[in-house]
Amino acid sequence: MDPEHDAYGQLLRDHVDGEAGREILERDDGLVSVAPPAERYFAVREEWSPREQTAIERAEGRVLDVGCGAGRVALALDTEVVGIDVSPGALGVSRDRGVDARELDVTDAAQLEGEFDTVVMFGNTFGLVGTGERAPRVLDALARVTTDDARILADTRDPHATDDAVHREYHDLNRRRGRLPGALRVRSRYETTATPWFDLLTVSPDEMREVLGPSPWDLREVVARDEGGGYVAELRKS
Amino acid sequence: MDPEHDAYGQLLRDHVDGEAGREILERDDGLVSVAPPAERYFAVREEWSPREQTAIERAEGRVLDVGCGAGRVALALDTEVVGIDVSPGALGVSRDRGVDARELDVTDAAQLEGEFDTVVMFGNTFGLVGTGERAPRVLDALARVTTDDARILADTRDPHATDDAVHREYHDLNRRRGRLPGALRVRSRYETTATPWFDLLTVSPDEMREVLGPSPWDLREVVARDEGGGYVAELRKS
Repeated sequence: MDPEHDAYGQLLRDHVDGEAGREILERDDGLVSVAPPAERYFAVREEWSPREQTAIERAEGRVLDVGCGAGRVALALDTEVVGIDVSPGALGVSRDRGVDARELDVTDAAQLEGEFDTVVMFGNTFGLVGTGERAPRVLDALARVTTDDARILADTRDPHATDDAVHREYHDLNRRRGRLPGALRVRSRYETTATPWFDLLTVSPDEMREVLGPSPWDLREVVARDEGGGYVAELRKS
Repeated sequence: MDPEHDAYGQLLRDHVDGEAGREILERDDGLVSVAPPAERYFAVREEWSPREQTAIERAEGRVLDVGCGAGRVALALDTEVVGIDVSPGALGVSRDRGVDARELDVTDAAQLEGEFDTVVMFGNTFGLVGTGERAPRVLDALARVTTDDARILADTRDPHATDDAVHREYHDLNRRRGRLPGALRVRSRYETTATPWFDLLTVSPDEMREVLGPSPWDLREVVARDEGGGYVAELRKS
């Protein structure tokens, strides 16, 4: 990612410098919202959401951390963890914190060397599979760098767990344009910097099963969920 | 203003309904920032900034409240107050609260009937004079509906009271395009609604004197100022 568009990385750097402002999320229906404070990207394990604290217990062996950000997952585990991210700022911050972080889009995960036993996609980064259409290709790339009995710990959010008319209308918009209801198209803005628009998929467990259909992965179990619709699913190879 | 673009009015309405989110301010250099909570538009006199509490003591006679919003100025005064605003939502909210609020752009203030003794431009609404170029026309309109010894209580902010490189660069951008450094071009965004882009002038006292030059008004006194650069100036006719 062009550093000029690295809104997220700038936020992380500013947080390290003790002067972080607030990240703004923009959705392609015009919705703007204020993201939770940058602290969450630096949270230690005991501060994570209960669903992530439960799910991380299942991480074992060599771990691939997708969208590693500031490296909170790697720093919480005793095993070998390789992080990938596309944000130069995130890579700088996580490397400064001792994380083995590589500049790589998850779509290109097959370029990684060696096999992984666990893939962690926390902080809604299961969404980085993009859209329902693109997801099987990304999931196939992850299958190629993982062991036969590897697991993916996939954090996402059921988009239907809302009564908000604005979200419901967005889901309808997505259906009309042939996308899954929770196939968000978003960008992150921070001060004068904006990331390019990107796809971030959110799915119910049933929708996740559909998305996984053409891929080498099955939804083995919903490991943990919270009242707001967030959940972590464990995926295993078919 | 088209209700579809009434981000600010929707914020005020949602606050009345107890479900206000956060207003996002966007500047035309791409800067996004989170506005203070909507409560401030409903603040009672004792909760206002110290500079406004000091300056409001000078309001007397028949008062014109420019950019009346939810009506906090009218509701704080015992005298006759006419509010003007262009936001349908603000007009609805302030009328529901008993305020005599008219749909009018301050540029068209000359359309008002009767004379006013005091014009209140609080909450940075002196900025609604727009740009250095447009300001004299707006100030002339205000002169035509006010008594000979009327005063304007003009709240603004010295744009130079900052060390932030982002703001300093924006001032330079404005100079290059022939605008006053603090001649902001902004819009308000709230949920999926965005106002049109509009000009909001911020000036130091010296810059205000220059802006007032061709107008019927002089800067009589800086009534009150705070450490952040905010101040209220009293303007009187030359």
